Amino acid sequence: MTDYRRLRVALLGAGAVGSQVAALLLRHADELADRAGATLELVGIAVRDLDATRDVELPRELLTTDPEPLLVGSDIVIELMGGIEPARTNLLQAINAGADVVTANKALLATHGPEIFDAADQVGAQVYYEAAAAGAIPIIRPLRDSLAGDRVQRIMGIVNGTTNYILDRMDAEGAEFADVLAQAQALGFAEADPTADVEGYDAAQKAAILASLAFHTTVPLDKVHREGITAIDKDMIDAARHAGYVIKLLAVCERLPGDDDTGESISVRVYPALVDRAHPLASVHGANNAVFVQAEAAGDLMFYGAGAGGVQTASAVLGDVVSAARRHIAGGKGVGESTRANLAVAPIGRVTTRYQITLEVDDRPGVLATVAGILSDGHVSIATVEQTVIEPAPGSPVTPADAPAAASAPAIPMARLVIGTHRAREQHLSDTVARLAESDVVERVVSVLRVEGD
Amino acid sequence: MTDYRRLRVALLGAGAVGSQVAALLLRHADELADRAGATLELVGIAVRDLDATRDVELPRELLTTDPEPLLVGSDIVIELMGGIEPARTNLLQAINAGADVVTANKALLATHGPEIFDAADQVGAQVYYEAAAAGAIPIIRPLRDSLAGDRVQRIMGIVNGTTNYILDRMDAEGAEFADVLAQAQALGFAEADPTADVEGYDAAQKAAILASLAFHTTVPLDKVHREGITAIDKDMIDAARHAGYVIKLLAVCERLPGDDDTGESISVRVYPALVDRAHPLASVHGANNAVFVQAEAAGDLMFYGAGAGGVQTASAVLGDVVSAARRHIAGGKGVGESTRANLAVAPIGRVTTRYQITLEVDDRPGVLATVAGILSDGHVSIATVEQTVIEPAPGSPVTPADAPAAASAPAIPMARLVIGTHRAREQHLSDTVARLAESDVVERVVSVLRVEGD
Repeated sequence: MTDYRRLRVALLGAGAVGSQVAALLLRHADELADRAGATLELVGIAVRDLDATRDVELPRELLTTDPEPLLVGSDIVIELMGGIEPARTNLLQAINAGADVVTANKALLATHGPEIFDAADQVGAQVYYEAAAAGAIPIIRPLRDSLAGDRVQRIMGIVNGTTNYILDRMDAEGAEFADVLAQAQALGFAEADPTADVEGYDAAQKAAILASLAFHTTVPLDKVHREGITAIDKDMIDAARHAGYVIKLLAVCERLPGDDDTGESISVRVYPALVDRAHPLASVHGANNAVFVQAEAAGDLMFYGAGAGGVQTASAVLGDVVSAARRHIAGGKGVGESTRANLAVAPIGRVTTRYQITLEVDDRPGVLATVAGILSDGHVSIATVEQTVIEPAPGSPVTPADAPAAASAPAIPMARLVIGTHRAREQHLSDTVARLAESDVVERVVSVLRVEGD
Repeated sequence: MTDYRRLRVALLGAGAVGSQVAALLLRHADELADRAGATLELVGIAVRDLDATRDVELPRELLTTDPEPLLVGSDIVIELMGGIEPARTNLLQAINAGADVVTANKALLATHGPEIFDAADQVGAQVYYEAAAAGAIPIIRPLRDSLAGDRVQRIMGIVNGTTNYILDRMDAEGAEFADVLAQAQALGFAEADPTADVEGYDAAQKAAILASLAFHTTVPLDKVHREGITAIDKDMIDAARHAGYVIKLLAVCERLPGDDDTGESISVRVYPALVDRAHPLASVHGANNAVFVQAEAAGDLMFYGAGAGGVQTASAVLGDVVSAARRHIAGGKGVGESTRANLAVAPIGRVTTRYQITLEVDDRPGVLATVAGILSDGHVSIATVEQTVIEPAPGSPVTPADAPAAASAPAIPMARLVIGTHRAREQHLSDTVARLAESDVVERVVSVLRVEGD
């Protein structure tokens, strides 16, 4: 065996990802040394509870509840605690004590990224975070390095496994949101408190990180428009399928052209959207993730894989650890961009996209003309319309439950109107939908969904 | 504008990719400087013919037919000449003169990679080659860095756009190879001499590069098993579709387990194979490329995008140029692996995979038993069998062309036998197929195709 220089590696956190990282560091020590050109000596693992049950057993003598001694004298510090504090303070301490750092902490990077990168720049330290944006999928290096000479136009990412699992099961089984969520919780695909996933908070953090890299711009988390998937029901999924779409929770990061008054800007948003079934993103099933990138020169690229999972994410973390070690041995400072573009993050109202609007309207002459007029007045151009008569539900109050279907005409005949629009500005669209909701002929705005991917 | 340090960039070659690289370096100079932290000054472009017609017009004063002066005093040398010489000599000269180098030359790296990497290691120079393996698709950094802490088990790549275009059109249109090839040549998707593509030479070079990275092993090009697609005809495509498969030219790089006598080894091979239509690789259409990676911890990953094209490939080259510039400014040596695994490259006979064997046999009692016996004797286990009667072709010599179909029983009744096998060793399979070919009951071995992806 080659006699390598030793590098001291400290691990903060031994949850689902951390325990796998520690296990792999120990199990594959010789092979990792050959890859890194250095022996990676795991000097300690800071945990909250020494006696917690873990996915894999870890040597007791490495565990400690006090991270402080690990933060000084380590060459590489891996932060997998999650959350803002004490992760932030510990990372900054490690950087200032001369360590290179690896983190998978998306919440921390999305809120305090600039502070951490600046601290690292000051001392020439390196910050690696491949696992923070899309789990095991290599996306940070492609965006930061491979596409550094190109201009990214748009990213569309399925970056949250839980919501993709839920939407995929709803689509495959025709099941309701609540039932699939319960099933996902039972299988471990969703947390007991699923808010961070189903309300899009997790995806929004990842969107902020991806957009920051792709557009060389600091993206504050509160500038990311965010909608979750709790309003998506079986009917919307069925209607989407009928129209050749699938509903996906997308993180969209887009370059917006400038106009006479303003320069180029970007939009960063997370919402459920209709995606054509022929689009590569439509084939991303289960808890998998994928990031679709459109760049000026490279054209369309897609990166696909496991977006979560302890051992999968550990792969990305270890790739960072080996990279940090190689650079440590080769010498030279951490690499950052010299000058950032600092584009403005535009409000959601400035975005243009296509929409599908589903309405319940009175089924009488002149209604379509009225609806079309409201859209036209609001600068929303209609591409497709499909009108269907709404059959009264069995047991509907207007007809006796046992009456033959042919005799069951409702008292007020109703129709469902599904309108596909051309590209329209979000502000125009939302104003127009508000006017539709107030209109006498519209009974109910059933849903408004963006169409992405064309 | 920030006042950056100047880096001298020389370009060797101004063909489809090189001319786009030059154009983008000039057009996006300010933006690239912000990304790189250095002004990238294009100091000269070495070309064979000053007056050649190019995809984009280049400043005449930068063109020269003498690369020599560009090889000394440049900070970054981009080699896009292609071929072995003078590319090899020029790259080595540039490295020894202190330059970092960027190349897209797969033929050179697949044959002289170790020589070039060693030369760079000696002087601490960097070698970048993102564009050499899969065009615009970022795959080098993911394999070299992101997966450095993982163990790659298998790569299956569609890495040649021309052959994927041809097979995809044959599948979509039910057309014959020669017709689609002519069409591809007319559209510029295939060269006038298509040998390098359709015989799998291009894919074999890329497979050698991918396997070298994935398994940390020098893979000599002559150890790559190579078969092209010229034997694939309409009938094979139709039969594949009927069985739920699509035929793709795959570059397969696989880790083979060791046994009592030998350690772990690898297999690197290029051949047309049957891929299940539900597999992500089956959806890669047209001239696109994709690389599917299976790693021990990360699980399944896929990288998808344009595998060729001047401007697309230029994106990957420029990403390398910016990376080289950033590292140049940050200081430190180029990063290589400390110790390579140097696994043995196993001969094709040691590979195990599934097969689909199509035979024309006499349609009489006992034939299936004979065929099954030959397979069983050869240690090839049958998974599925489908036997169909072969209808004589209209105009077949054994019946008058105008005879009614019902009366047209051929003199010798024939059947088609499609046999799907369980995993078998290639050596057993090829021995068995030879015995089948010699058997009295087998009229013709129509095709033998591997099944990959499960």
